[in-house]
Amino acid sequence: MGTLVEEIFSRRAGRSVRAGEIILLDVDTIMSHDNTTPLAIKAFREIGKPIRNPDQIVIHFDHAYPAPNLLAAENQQKILRFMREQGIRHFYHHGVCHQVMIEEGFVRPGGVVIGADSHTVTYGALGCFSTGLGSSEIGAAWVTGKCWFRTPETILIRLEGQTAPGVYSKDVMLYLAGVLGMDGATYRALEFEGSYIRNLPMHERLVFSNMSVELGAKCGLIAPDEITLQYLAQETRAQPPFEVFRAEQPRYERVVEIDVSGLEPQIACHPDVDQVKPLREVEGLPIDEVYIGTCTNARYEDLEIAAGILRGRQVHRFTRVLVTPASQTIYEKAMQNGLIEVFLQAGCTVNAPGCGACLGRHGGVLAPGERAFTTMNRNFIGRMGSSEAEIYLGSPAAAAATALEGRITDPRKYL
Amino acid sequence: MGTLVEEIFSRRAGRSVRAGEIILLDVDTIMSHDNTTPLAIKAFREIGKPIRNPDQIVIHFDHAYPAPNLLAAENQQKILRFMREQGIRHFYHHGVCHQVMIEEGFVRPGGVVIGADSHTVTYGALGCFSTGLGSSEIGAAWVTGKCWFRTPETILIRLEGQTAPGVYSKDVMLYLAGVLGMDGATYRALEFEGSYIRNLPMHERLVFSNMSVELGAKCGLIAPDEITLQYLAQETRAQPPFEVFRAEQPRYERVVEIDVSGLEPQIACHPDVDQVKPLREVEGLPIDEVYIGTCTNARYEDLEIAAGILRGRQVHRFTRVLVTPASQTIYEKAMQNGLIEVFLQAGCTVNAPGCGACLGRHGGVLAPGERAFTTMNRNFIGRMGSSEAEIYLGSPAAAAATALEGRITDPRKYL
Repeated sequence: MGTLVEEIFSRRAGRSVRAGEIILLDVDTIMSHDNTTPLAIKAFREIGKPIRNPDQIVIHFDHAYPAPNLLAAENQQKILRFMREQGIRHFYHHGVCHQVMIEEGFVRPGGVVIGADSHTVTYGALGCFSTGLGSSEIGAAWVTGKCWFRTPETILIRLEGQTAPGVYSKDVMLYLAGVLGMDGATYRALEFEGSYIRNLPMHERLVFSNMSVELGAKCGLIAPDEITLQYLAQETRAQPPFEVFRAEQPRYERVVEIDVSGLEPQIACHPDVDQVKPLREVEGLPIDEVYIGTCTNARYEDLEIAAGILRGRQVHRFTRVLVTPASQTIYEKAMQNGLIEVFLQAGCTVNAPGCGACLGRHGGVLAPGERAFTTMNRNFIGRMGSSEAEIYLGSPAAAAATALEGRITDPRKYL
Repeated sequence: MGTLVEEIFSRRAGRSVRAGEIILLDVDTIMSHDNTTPLAIKAFREIGKPIRNPDQIVIHFDHAYPAPNLLAAENQQKILRFMREQGIRHFYHHGVCHQVMIEEGFVRPGGVVIGADSHTVTYGALGCFSTGLGSSEIGAAWVTGKCWFRTPETILIRLEGQTAPGVYSKDVMLYLAGVLGMDGATYRALEFEGSYIRNLPMHERLVFSNMSVELGAKCGLIAPDEITLQYLAQETRAQPPFEVFRAEQPRYERVVEIDVSGLEPQIACHPDVDQVKPLREVEGLPIDEVYIGTCTNARYEDLEIAAGILRGRQVHRFTRVLVTPASQTIYEKAMQNGLIEVFLQAGCTVNAPGCGACLGRHGGVLAPGERAFTTMNRNFIGRMGSSEAEIYLGSPAAAAATALEGRITDPRKYL
């Protein structure tokens, strides 16, 4: 009974939990990465108690791997030593942590996962409560296996209709960001439903959960259904049985209804994720870097869409076009099906799976005055390097079309 | 008449040129990259005269591409602006400059190529005089199309016999480095010949020319022959006819003869390229990073050798294993033939073609106390990151075997 987040918390607590209640819950998995683990280790050392269960801990090297500088190298060395010392077995350097977490089976409907990364919310698309926490909370959770939460109120996002060709879940989510604003869901749960969501494949659903945090949300949930179960079985190592549940007699703080049918390709403009417009309003703006990657839009289907537009064509001569598959599994599948070949032939640079250029830490840092178009989830000042650079967000299709022309381009031109 | 370098200089000058003579020669191509071009631009601006022929200039982004930090990003932005301003068409970001130079047809027997990179000597394997110069010389050559040289004396390296299985040209070259020492060929031309060289395919010959500079040599030449012509036709865009020539009645300053038949796998130990031993003498030393890449040993055949050892096996859990094909062409071929798949399955990280970890600028920087085994050409202190790290050099086969065990391993164990 209740909203999705209340349902998950109630199941975990073994009693009815309602919005507003502060509760201590057992967590399934505690995730961190090369950027955040060193601080978690520091907190853990200060606590001075043993790790409760090393198999509950998953550590990824994805933010700046292989190390692009001495500081990163030292951090990773420190983490490697810690993992060996503590017998932590779940160590990955195979792509963006969130994608790898899902593929490796750490994400299950009804699960509770915490991570030292804001986009840990991504797993909500599979009906898993997941949220990002500070590194010191993570260090504490290593010891207790638990975490406290204030059960969030829920905003229901009801999405009806069907998008037109050239319009993707990224466009819908950007549009929603424009409607709600960057603090429109602060410490709320977002719950996505409606006919649009019900028909949406998992790779497109993940965009909604992933970007929920850009609106301030604690989590972004979608009720598990047949599509979820099929995805879990086919694309992940998660082992059944899985819990299936839905919101029952939920009380929502607010309901936002959007008919996606009339929507056209959207773009989030410099310098905020809620500066959203129809893409054609900024068409023609010159672009120095196109980046197709990240936990938002670098899944196989995203690469397939981009490759469909780039196939047999050449990217603009002076626009660097970076493609970074979200995970090694995706990279391999893209390779086997000829997508990587398409990218190379078109003049793209294909990087090793990971967070890549998203953080401005390596793999395509922006110079002052440069302008990037990317499939990322955030575009605040300085995110990709120089504080005098500009970042625009859109779909993989829009990124590919923009790569061809070296300026912001409506993807429908190339469909 | 004369040594190979005298022959090339004489042909270019249209008269007989002998060792010791200082001569001004027309150059075919002037190469530079993201690391060195900014200084060349500075020198060029100070001269204040126009570029003689923009088509003579070739610029690569390979040392730190895509940019791993703000400084690199700004440098590359500056170079891009300069290229657009000056109408420089030959711009590549498709791998290590030296490999791309050869593939794209800028290297021909009898040619004279200068580059703002010490490993420009690599083209000597195709009978092309090529050498590395400071960036300000390069900026001056943009204006004049010429460069002065002191015609070097030549040391002949006569290599006879055939290597045993598991022993490659890299081992022979390392052995030679041990014999001659790091300043054993200062401002000399090296000339490689003998039955071993005559039977050697181009990818193995290139190792000798590439590493000539590690001994201080101005160039490292091999007389063009049928193998050269076949390679040019099959693997490069260079257009015939090609000059074929050889040393005629040469006077060598010194002749070094080595029978390669009894040689076993070699290793250059921390901290100098001439600290060479049979690899088995340091077997078992733990290794934190294996790096298969660079202008020395990341050609298709090198990757094939490494993949042959890694196929169906797993690299050591806590050793990061980085594979960086020398060029996009090599990467594509390796992908088409399943080598990349082998690397991924074995747990390697495959990076975009480029110089990668070689310079300690990105893509696998070493932390203090870490130890790397790599197919690179130099191992001086601090080369790959921390000045407290150690670098060991060997063949791709030795690198692959070492990757499997996480400690220095004789490749013959896995043949």
